Amino acid sequence: MSDNVAGDVRLQRQLSFLLEIDRLKQVLRRTLIVDGSRRENDAEHSWHIALYAAILHEHAPDPKPELGRVIRMLLIHDLVEIDAGDTFAYDTIGYQDKAEREEAAATRLFGLLPEDQALEWRALWQEFEEGETAEARYAAALDRLQPMLHNFHTDGHSWKLNGVTLSQAVARLRVLEEACPPLWTFATDMLRQSVERGYLKEE
Amino acid sequence: MSDNVAGDVRLQRQLSFLLEIDRLKQVLRRTLIVDGSRRENDAEHSWHIALYAAILHEHAPDPKPELGRVIRMLLIHDLVEIDAGDTFAYDTIGYQDKAEREEAAATRLFGLLPEDQALEWRALWQEFEEGETAEARYAAALDRLQPMLHNFHTDGHSWKLNGVTLSQAVARLRVLEEACPPLWTFATDMLRQSVERGYLKEE
Repeated sequence: MSDNVAGDVRLQRQLSFLLEIDRLKQVLRRTLIVDGSRRENDAEHSWHIALYAAILHEHAPDPKPELGRVIRMLLIHDLVEIDAGDTFAYDTIGYQDKAEREEAAATRLFGLLPEDQALEWRALWQEFEEGETAEARYAAALDRLQPMLHNFHTDGHSWKLNGVTLSQAVARLRVLEEACPPLWTFATDMLRQSVERGYLKEE
Repeated sequence: MSDNVAGDVRLQRQLSFLLEIDRLKQVLRRTLIVDGSRRENDAEHSWHIALYAAILHEHAPDPKPELGRVIRMLLIHDLVEIDAGDTFAYDTIGYQDKAEREEAAATRLFGLLPEDQALEWRALWQEFEEGETAEARYAAALDRLQPMLHNFHTDGHSWKLNGVTLSQAVARLRVLEEACPPLWTFATDMLRQSVERGYLKEE
């Protein structure tokens, strides 16, 4: 096989992947967009928090997480939901087989890429899931901060719909405490206000 | 003013910006998403081409454009359309005052950020608009490649709706020739097929 033909096959696999992930635009989340008019989808959510990562980077503790890596991680962190669907943050039954469904999805989706890229991007997704590195923790913090802001600005929409309590929300947001302390201060204040306004149940 | 209060003001401005840009999810483009079910919005388009940039980076000529910079550029390249609207690529009347409308939008939107960040992000947007650097050219190439693929996979939807000709499409895609030669070869082949299938007018 000539270099040119090999190159074509490689490009074809890359483009197949890029076309397939278009389906992330069809995966609806529980949160609404900020004007409350409709549910947000995973693709636009991923775009949004990639910019959260860039704009709020100064608030992450030193040594700073590597921003390029965080952004790439956030751009692909929800891809597995193309196959596995969006599991609501407070859905304990859905969480039982979430890991298994998402592993299978990662195998199929990243497997569309040339092998070296499949390994690289799947490892980046795995790093996000494991949440051990500074980059993964900062990424997770933003993935939780943004829906909180959307809930607050849509009168607690998905919290009220699902009867979410303050302690559930605090548990979900607590990753901010270590990953981004100034945002944790901000979040605890917003959660307190959310209880006062009746968006979150006291218990 | 204590550091803490100054810090709060800075964070508030950053969060105001991040909430305001949520409106990019409401700016509809002419192209459809790949399954043809609805029009794509600017936020999900921006997410998609940021991943195009990462996955196809090896095809850019040496010295490679700096990927982190390209991705940040693509994430904000359409923000001005929140105020200025999406001007269709082949709309010559809309293009007459496009620059003016977009400059005003950039002033307002990036102006929501703390001053140092406003300058930094506006400069990045300006760099994309001017198209002089390797990063801006590679970013522009992907911004044109993705809609071509979507048009091809939706039976030429927005091309047919607007009577776009082959020479118009070639002129639009030509940025690929220098910014990413293997993709230019791929694109010229896809445009030829698009004429054969009746998606693009021969003239």
